[in-house]
Amino acid sequence: MPTITSAILIIGNEILSGSTQDANIAFIAKRLAVRGIQLSEVRIVRDEEQAIVEALNALRTKYRYVFTTGGIGPTHDDITAECVAKTFGVPHEVNAEAKRRLEEYYAPKGVTLNEARLRMAMIPRGAELIDNPVSIAPGFNIGNVFVMAGVPKIMQGMFDHVDRMIEGGKPLQSRKVDSNLKEGDIAKELGDIQKEFPQVDIGSYPHNGQTPSLSLILRSAEEAPLEAATAKVAAMVRAHGEEPL
Amino acid sequence: MPTITSAILIIGNEILSGSTQDANIAFIAKRLAVRGIQLSEVRIVRDEEQAIVEALNALRTKYRYVFTTGGIGPTHDDITAECVAKTFGVPHEVNAEAKRRLEEYYAPKGVTLNEARLRMAMIPRGAELIDNPVSIAPGFNIGNVFVMAGVPKIMQGMFDHVDRMIEGGKPLQSRKVDSNLKEGDIAKELGDIQKEFPQVDIGSYPHNGQTPSLSLILRSAEEAPLEAATAKVAAMVRAHGEEPL
Repeated sequence: MPTITSAILIIGNEILSGSTQDANIAFIAKRLAVRGIQLSEVRIVRDEEQAIVEALNALRTKYRYVFTTGGIGPTHDDITAECVAKTFGVPHEVNAEAKRRLEEYYAPKGVTLNEARLRMAMIPRGAELIDNPVSIAPGFNIGNVFVMAGVPKIMQGMFDHVDRMIEGGKPLQSRKVDSNLKEGDIAKELGDIQKEFPQVDIGSYPHNGQTPSLSLILRSAEEAPLEAATAKVAAMVRAHGEEPL
Repeated sequence: MPTITSAILIIGNEILSGSTQDANIAFIAKRLAVRGIQLSEVRIVRDEEQAIVEALNALRTKYRYVFTTGGIGPTHDDITAECVAKTFGVPHEVNAEAKRRLEEYYAPKGVTLNEARLRMAMIPRGAELIDNPVSIAPGFNIGNVFVMAGVPKIMQGMFDHVDRMIEGGKPLQSRKVDSNLKEGDIAKELGDIQKEFPQVDIGSYPHNGQTPSLSLILRSAEEAPLEAATAKVAAMVRAHGEEPL
């Protein structure tokens, strides 16, 4: 089965200025891994039309799915929806169902659906809405692009719906072999094991000054080569006089 | 003075699999802001030659500086240095000074400078070394690309040297106006203020269900328009019956 690939596009100056620590990449990455979808690339761009449109076009033509976060609120710097409409060459217009949801949500609170809030109901023509269980204003899906909010709690709520809209693959399984070996002592042998098991992705992660000092992580959608490669890695660790942790 | 632009390229499957939470983007972003350098884009790619070379070429031709993290250790998945050499069309070879530093560091510890470890001294021809005060194996600078380790503590140590190698601009200053207003109530007026002050970058960041519920952040390298725009934003908040926090 071919790998199902994907990318995340994070839109927002607040991540690039360092004022906000991103929390969306790791969340989406973990959820995609569970579904057997490879996260192949992430890009973070500023709230600027050209940057957003260029990145979207590059990613949507290269990967099976693209997930965006950020830039779908009511303020001047929220330009994601119109950029997506431009990318797909469709009108950016009020979506009747999105407007209905906002009206129903705001009316009992006495909040006016003013021009700014109505922008949150403007969606590229032909897009399917993504439910927002937290603050109602929906995300949307058009083509292979899924547009979500940037606020982590809202994005996470939306992802539950996205999760039901996408097709998964065979989930990756992973094995970890921890030890207090030095990376440089086993690098050659580890590379040989990697060559022997091309279906398994073997990563080596040293933990500077910590115990265990080294994590070897093996990932594969195929159980048999994963177990065989893990056994070889564990045997290699033992041959270096360490018991795998 | 024209904006000094830059990008970060993070290399490593461990971030894309969600198993490691990135800590390097926010660190570098903050240090660049202090130096008056705009972080314009971030990309995260897998440990694959084609992905690394393509991203490097796109970023180094588009931005003044490119900072990479990850993929410079001794194992088979550490391929950053050879990809950078390929990108610049120069040989990937043992650097005498890098080798000397590794020998000097390993000899008293009784650690062998084996073939795998010697890979950490292989650097694109013509590159300048970046000091590593934590674990010695250096990063390097070639053209407008600065190659650093992925382990945050080591990357941070290297960045102190990088900081002395790059030219800064006029630092951005920022002002924050917090309130408990709703974004949708002030979006139109905020957009008008943004139009009036194009030299100031005004961002609106709602905090779902928290107090304050909304942060308006203004950034500019020019003090006068920054103060004027901040005063207008504060006046707008007061006109909505709230005292800026």
